Amino acid sequence: MRRRIVECIPNFSEGRDPSFLDEIVKVIKDSGCNVLDASMDPSHNRSVVTFVGAPADVEQAAFRAARRASELIDMEKHEGEHPRIGATDVMPFVPILGATMEDCVEMARRVGRRIGEELRIPVYLYARAAARPDRVRLPDVRRGEYEGLKAAIKTDPNRKPDFGPSELHPRAGATAVGARAPLIAFNVNLNTPDVKIARSIARKIRESSGGLPHVQAMGIKIDETGLAQITMNLLDFRATSMELVYSKIEEEAASRGVEIVNSELIGLVPLDALLDVAFARLKLEGFSKQRILDLIV
Amino acid sequence: MRRRIVECIPNFSEGRDPSFLDEIVKVIKDSGCNVLDASMDPSHNRSVVTFVGAPADVEQAAFRAARRASELIDMEKHEGEHPRIGATDVMPFVPILGATMEDCVEMARRVGRRIGEELRIPVYLYARAAARPDRVRLPDVRRGEYEGLKAAIKTDPNRKPDFGPSELHPRAGATAVGARAPLIAFNVNLNTPDVKIARSIARKIRESSGGLPHVQAMGIKIDETGLAQITMNLLDFRATSMELVYSKIEEEAASRGVEIVNSELIGLVPLDALLDVAFARLKLEGFSKQRILDLIV
Repeated sequence: MRRRIVECIPNFSEGRDPSFLDEIVKVIKDSGCNVLDASMDPSHNRSVVTFVGAPADVEQAAFRAARRASELIDMEKHEGEHPRIGATDVMPFVPILGATMEDCVEMARRVGRRIGEELRIPVYLYARAAARPDRVRLPDVRRGEYEGLKAAIKTDPNRKPDFGPSELHPRAGATAVGARAPLIAFNVNLNTPDVKIARSIARKIRESSGGLPHVQAMGIKIDETGLAQITMNLLDFRATSMELVYSKIEEEAASRGVEIVNSELIGLVPLDALLDVAFARLKLEGFSKQRILDLIV
Repeated sequence: MRRRIVECIPNFSEGRDPSFLDEIVKVIKDSGCNVLDASMDPSHNRSVVTFVGAPADVEQAAFRAARRASELIDMEKHEGEHPRIGATDVMPFVPILGATMEDCVEMARRVGRRIGEELRIPVYLYARAAARPDRVRLPDVRRGEYEGLKAAIKTDPNRKPDFGPSELHPRAGATAVGARAPLIAFNVNLNTPDVKIARSIARKIRESSGGLPHVQAMGIKIDETGLAQITMNLLDFRATSMELVYSKIEEEAASRGVEIVNSELIGLVPLDALLDVAFARLKLEGFSKQRILDLIV
């Protein structure tokens, strides 16, 4: 029997009370899923849980986590730096193993419908699960945040949710549910303190200013090292590989007289993304993962 | 119960008749082993089969495959670029899971004894199974190849086999049986037909002529492509990484005015060897395999 694994990474608008995260993690584990990571950010006042499991278990765990969050969080009292629209702010499903993007789109729709109809929380489908083009990007869905959406959802037909009532849930707000490819958080450090150089390279790299498809990038300064960094999300490593991003940065850095010091990966990374780098580096031909010893014995 | 897995990678001196490989693979599967890879190289006129299984099954499969090869191959008629001494030219056992190097040394000795005594094929124990220091290295065991060994085995006391008669089997020649750590068979193709360039780079690379530790390398010409190739065994990728070998070849090639076209891996490769290449390419810091999604779900 073929194993099928889907990942879900819900973000919750509570980042200061550890007992909240304990409760959510328990709900997810009790639904038969494996929690890979759970972290709180007090400054963002936000928690992120990364869990995996069989599609049916992940679907159940996601719904139950959203229900529990709607009982524990009161958006009327929430403040924090990160943009948000609800208690369960965003909930993406990601195909990992033996599951397709289409499977995850369907999961997002089913879970979204249940959250809308059973919990009476308005749901916006986003990313690959979006039902309309102006909801593909999360910032478009979150426009105005909780406070702004409260009025807009009632008055603006373009803000009518895909599921659930056309008014915010009195405590839990609204939720964005979607499907996307695994995302890679990738940072490249330069041998210069000049953040302007990092920003100028980031502009060359990122999709929004005409760079590489599926790449988000910013130039920032890292206080600890005193060096400039290009901090990125690679939204689709199969379309734009780490190798391509890295070599483009290498080239742009060289043309500005600076060099890459090192790079970092934040959180989890799909194996294929790293193997692609090795294959490209070695100009390797005719190889397949079926010949990697550790993966087949 | 603890699972014990041993790998065996016999090389046979027949690389042009697909029905030969079918027969050998069948013998191995019928002995209860799992064939991970089976490939023929017409220019080398050589087949390599990679199989794994429980130690007792692997031992049985290895002996039966050597027996079948001795029935199917006639070394008197064999020609091909790769050095060889017999029908089953070389047969290493490799500990993979729950088995030790000592287990594999004992397997090599038992299988070697059976091939020598039951099939009347002289057997040289090599690598970690070697019974004398001048048989640790395969090139020493293969010196003179089939044609040269035919006389030397009778006249030179230092070429007397560890098992079996002191004359070559009339059709099957001799066999090297051994135990070793997982090895990487890595070939790099150059954009030149000039085999002298490949040979000169191979001399720079290989340990035996003062190059990189644990690297065996030869320069050969590939008939199919008309290009020169550096064909290598990396005996310890943790000591000398693929990245180091590749970049050294890149450098030596550039200094001779040629370039790498592509590379190939033969058989199986440990995952770490490929990950090391990716990490080096990206100058990645602070990362561990524990954060590779596929390995932890």
